[in-house]
Amino acid sequence: MERHFDEELKNLKQKLLRMADTAQEMIGLAVKALVERKEALTQEVFGLEQNVNHMEIEIEEEVLRLLALRQPAAGDLRLLTAILKINNDLERVGDQACNIAESTLDLLQQPPLKPLIDIPHMAQLAQRMIKNSLDAFVNQNPSLAKQVCADDDEVDRINEQIFRELLTYMMQDPKSINRAVDLILVSRNLERVADHATNISEDVIFIVEGKNIKHHIQEER
Amino acid sequence: MERHFDEELKNLKQKLLRMADTAQEMIGLAVKALVERKEALTQEVFGLEQNVNHMEIEIEEEVLRLLALRQPAAGDLRLLTAILKINNDLERVGDQACNIAESTLDLLQQPPLKPLIDIPHMAQLAQRMIKNSLDAFVNQNPSLAKQVCADDDEVDRINEQIFRELLTYMMQDPKSINRAVDLILVSRNLERVADHATNISEDVIFIVEGKNIKHHIQEER
Repeated sequence: MERHFDEELKNLKQKLLRMADTAQEMIGLAVKALVERKEALTQEVFGLEQNVNHMEIEIEEEVLRLLALRQPAAGDLRLLTAILKINNDLERVGDQACNIAESTLDLLQQPPLKPLIDIPHMAQLAQRMIKNSLDAFVNQNPSLAKQVCADDDEVDRINEQIFRELLTYMMQDPKSINRAVDLILVSRNLERVADHATNISEDVIFIVEGKNIKHHIQEER
Repeated sequence: MERHFDEELKNLKQKLLRMADTAQEMIGLAVKALVERKEALTQEVFGLEQNVNHMEIEIEEEVLRLLALRQPAAGDLRLLTAILKINNDLERVGDQACNIAESTLDLLQQPPLKPLIDIPHMAQLAQRMIKNSLDAFVNQNPSLAKQVCADDDEVDRINEQIFRELLTYMMQDPKSINRAVDLILVSRNLERVADHATNISEDVIFIVEGKNIKHHIQEER
């Protein structure tokens, strides 16, 4: 019985990893569609969102089933509630990818405003953070989780920089405003993806070290 | 024993209602600070965020304790996991209020761009949605929850309208750009508060009607 439960938990973690892979891929595709001006890729993003949504429902139902059936003790209980939260974060990463794809559709109606360097860099960072936060979860690795929290500061810095640069564009040429605002929104969406990775990492640190760092970190800031 | 558990659930719901009241109050204060140009009110928002953060931790720990101790059956299990999710949504409403207060601090350094009519209206709608979603939860009222989902469309509409109006301002006067972008971000933050209320309402419908409407709704859109 115990052994069976371990197996079920392992399967659940595998499902969560697959969901994270898909969510990450969506971010990559949405930004690729933007940078390479390939509208067709946005449709792939919207298609994958359906998959992520179904995975979310499946994982949530599996957690509820395990909670009811296995009546887990403290440690596994924390693990299962963490899975519920991570599941929710990943679904929202998928939403952010869709937001980026929406802005991209708008941007592709207009000539490019500027070469995009910072946005794909930021997207790569955010994707790596999602991957690392899930690895930290599955391998219960708090130092990797802390690395994710540190990367978040870098993403925030780039987001601020993009914002300031685009303000300058808008000031110089009112015709750039519509596109600049769209790019600011894309940058905010990526910053939010990084926030979700940070949430996940904080949950990992909470589980492993048994303390809630989330609000301590905020207070230190 | 059963009776005691009912009492514990009731207390937990009360705590969640208090947290929702505080989160709602934060939104009201942040927008009031902006509209009435009262910087001191932003400090109240940041102060209340500490309370909301503590409430989130307290509620989460209480849910884990009940899950472990009471080993609830299917219905109560769904209720407790819904409380975990609502708890998370309310904490993020508090974050949105802080974002609004940050933008407000920036805006108060500059002369007003325009009289603010739509933003306080949108804030009132979003606050009412939070209140109604919690009432729907506590009283297990799916028709009130559906009302919240309908109100979300109105909030999205106002958000779009604000966005278009502010784009016009920016086009006409580059000196307005900085302030217009801040106001666009405030409007997005309010739209996100409404999204959290919608998430909560979807959970309520899920609990009461035992089906997951979230992604069906998205597909219909």
